Amino acid sequence: MKSHTDYMTFNTDQRREFVRITQNVQEAVDTSGVREGLVLVSAMHITAGVWVNDDEPGIQADTLEWLDKIAPPSWQEPSNDVARQLLPQDGGDYRHQRGGEDNGDAHLKNLLTHQQVVLPITEGKLDLGPWQAVFYVEFDGRRSKRLVIKVIGD
Amino acid sequence: MKSHTDYMTFNTDQRREFVRITQNVQEAVDTSGVREGLVLVSAMHITAGVWVNDDEPGIQADTLEWLDKIAPPSWQEPSNDVARQLLPQDGGDYRHQRGGEDNGDAHLKNLLTHQQVVLPITEGKLDLGPWQAVFYVEFDGRRSKRLVIKVIGD
Amino acid sequence: MKSHTDYMTFNTDQRREFVRITQNVQEAVDTSGVREGLVLVSAMHITAGVWVNDDEPGIQADTLEWLDKIAPPSWQEPSNDVARQLLPQDGGDYRHQRGGEDNGDAHLKNLLTHQQVVLPITEGKLDLGPWQAVFYVEFDGRRSKRLVIKVIGD
Repeated sequence: MKSHTDYMTFNTDQRREFVRITQNVQEAVDTSGVREGLVLVSAMHITAGVWVNDDEPGIQADTLEWLDKIAPPSWQEPSNDVARQLLPQDGGDYRHQRGGEDNGDAHLKNLLTHQQVVLPITEGKLDLGPWQAVFYVEFDGRRSKRLVIKVIGD
Repeated sequence: MKSHTDYMTFNTDQRREFVRITQNVQEAVDTSGVREGLVLVSAMHITAGVWVNDDEPGIQADTLEWLDKIAPPSWQEPSNDVARQLLPQDGGDYRHQRGGEDNGDAHLKNLLTHQQVVLPITEGKLDLGPWQAVFYVEFDGRRSKRLVIKVIGD
Repeated sequence: MKSHTDYMTFNTDQRREFVRITQNVQEAVDTSGVREGLVLVSAMHITAGVWVNDDEPGIQADTLEWLDKIAPPSWQEPSNDVARQLLPQDGGDYRHQRGGEDNGDAHLKNLLTHQQVVLPITEGKLDLGPWQAVFYVEFDGRRSKRLVIKVIGD
């Protein structure tokens, strides 16, 4: 069995950002020499996600608007009444932020989008469908964050 | 290390459908000859999910009603005020649908249910709990969709 | 390729509970002798989840409050109007509970938090970020529940 480990570091300009990494994952697979196997792509932080979706700006804007309602930030006015009610104590602050952070919402967004994906490798290539692109999704950026890529197979 | 890849194609009659595939996954494991390992079951489309749950119609109806509130379709009236507020611009249309599609909600449902599961293989069998059945969950059917099953192990 | 399978059994005192299991997963990796590989940590029940997050009580309280709004229990008063509207038939009972159970919400919480994670193993250690702890998250406890840990690699 072969294996290979790569790390990527992100330091996004924006607080929230979608970074396409399909090619980076394929390069890790190429380096590994694995022809048949699996590759795990997993954020090493709990305020980011890894998402497989269409590389289409409309989906990203829709998703961010929706995530800001479902898992509302406390550093901006709630988007609407649903968002207000989904804040702790219906409009209050996250308990997690008592230590001075303001990323309580990013932890819930990590939970919703999931921190990782596992991708199949077939004949040396990521075995993805036609619209599947891999994204690192940052919810609390402007600081250094890491992601691990672990390839195993033969 | 052994590996085996199978693909399944779905073309559901309904727009949304739960298709039980536990036996198909077991058959891919049987074909692989793997006795100890992992099997990845992953939708190759971004408007479907893979779900492990009880094969009980009540759960499926509960879940679909709930998903239609949390990730509301724009092709039907919102179920209630929460659903209306969770649509883009509080009752508007998905930006993704500017290209003529009407499956914006299916992308969010894919995110919520997750596109994949990884199952353990022990002594040649899927190592599942007593109520765990594997489902392909279609959110935008009536067209040809694919799923990949990747088995690795010894 | 090496492999190793461990099972953990939980019987929590509380209906809902976060149980930290990072060390248990590391011990399974140690036993396996795997230096480079993957470990799957997966609930064998559909009313529990596996979550990687900060071991910080504020996050856990925030998350449980939020989950009780998004995926409301029917065995207590809805937390607020959003929770009420997210119940089946806007304040009604889960269809799944017609058989006498009262854990309809736990199935939706399992869906939201996801039942499993896959962790990378590098040089014999779980390759986790600085704040990543692994939790079994019980949503319908006070009964015997199982989790499977499957290690594969070299």
